[in-house]
Amino acid sequence: MLSLGIDPGTASLGYGLVREHDDGSLTCVHYDVIRTRADTPMPQRLKQIHDELVVIVERYQPDRAAVEELFFARNVTTAITVAQARGVVLLALQNAGLPIAEYKPNAIKQSITGYGGADKTQMQEMVRLLLTLDNRPRPDDAADALAVAIADLQHYRLASFNTV
Amino acid sequence: MLSLGIDPGTASLGYGLVREHDDGSLTCVHYDVIRTRADTPMPQRLKQIHDELVVIVERYQPDRAAVEELFFARNVTTAITVAQARGVVLLALQNAGLPIAEYKPNAIKQSITGYGGADKTQMQEMVRLLLTLDNRPRPDDAADALAVAIADLQHYRLASFNTV
Repeated sequence: MLSLGIDPGTASLGYGLVREHDDGSLTCVHYDVIRTRADTPMPQRLKQIHDELVVIVERYQPDRAAVEELFFARNVTTAITVAQARGVVLLALQNAGLPIAEYKPNAIKQSITGYGGADKTQMQEMVRLLLTLDNRPRPDDAADALAVAIADLQHYRLASFNTV
Repeated sequence: MLSLGIDPGTASLGYGLVREHDDGSLTCVHYDVIRTRADTPMPQRLKQIHDELVVIVERYQPDRAAVEELFFARNVTTAITVAQARGVVLLALQNAGLPIAEYKPNAIKQSITGYGGADKTQMQEMVRLLLTLDNRPRPDDAADALAVAIADLQHYRLASFNTV
């Protein structure tokens, strides 16, 4: 079971691919960020994000996709910008026919560390341990995306058990 | 010069096509809304909006497109949902190679009525008069989209003059 986790953004969109093996162990297949330039018009940046994500899906053929939900208490302008990117991400995943799950940030933290208020360092250290990586994944957006994929696989496994 | 105006939304996305003739007069070519069902998963709704918009662009072949900017002082959740739809709209327009303009709601009101604080009825009545329609266009989202297209044509004409 290969899950593609995504941390939406416009300047930097994180993605991470995590495989769960039959024994329940996890391996990191790939992670990176899609970067777009601030001096490029937004429609072009959205197209770049969409098109690069389509290539990633074609290359790695994930079984599932998971996207972090947006939570902004303060800056509505930032929320709108990131949500536009999230829209083209959902479109690309839908067009690929993937099951798409969405998780709130604190649900991801809860899933990874057992604590919804975990800080960034704790999260990245847990991602490193769960994926048996030598170092914490960088940059932050890619590490967040790996956490989304791990949470998705955990959630999917629990859901499978529940339906037995 | 044919402009496609868009009032973004998820449950109901308004669009309107307005042609400006050489004598500066305007005619309404078409207007309607794209509706999606609230009980459908968001990725499917975004795909529906995107795909229907692609068909509209292919059918009417506009020269330009204009999209209303989002302004939400209060409800961030609504802002995020509408912004996701706006993202797939911008993607479809960018893929069609159209020049894309974006206008703030009060700039559109200012352009149509001369007053940035005009109410909905005043706006729709001015749209009706400018397009010499028998009745005010309905529903609201479609009327708003026609206003976006009119404002775009006015802005484009002024911009053309400025560069002479």
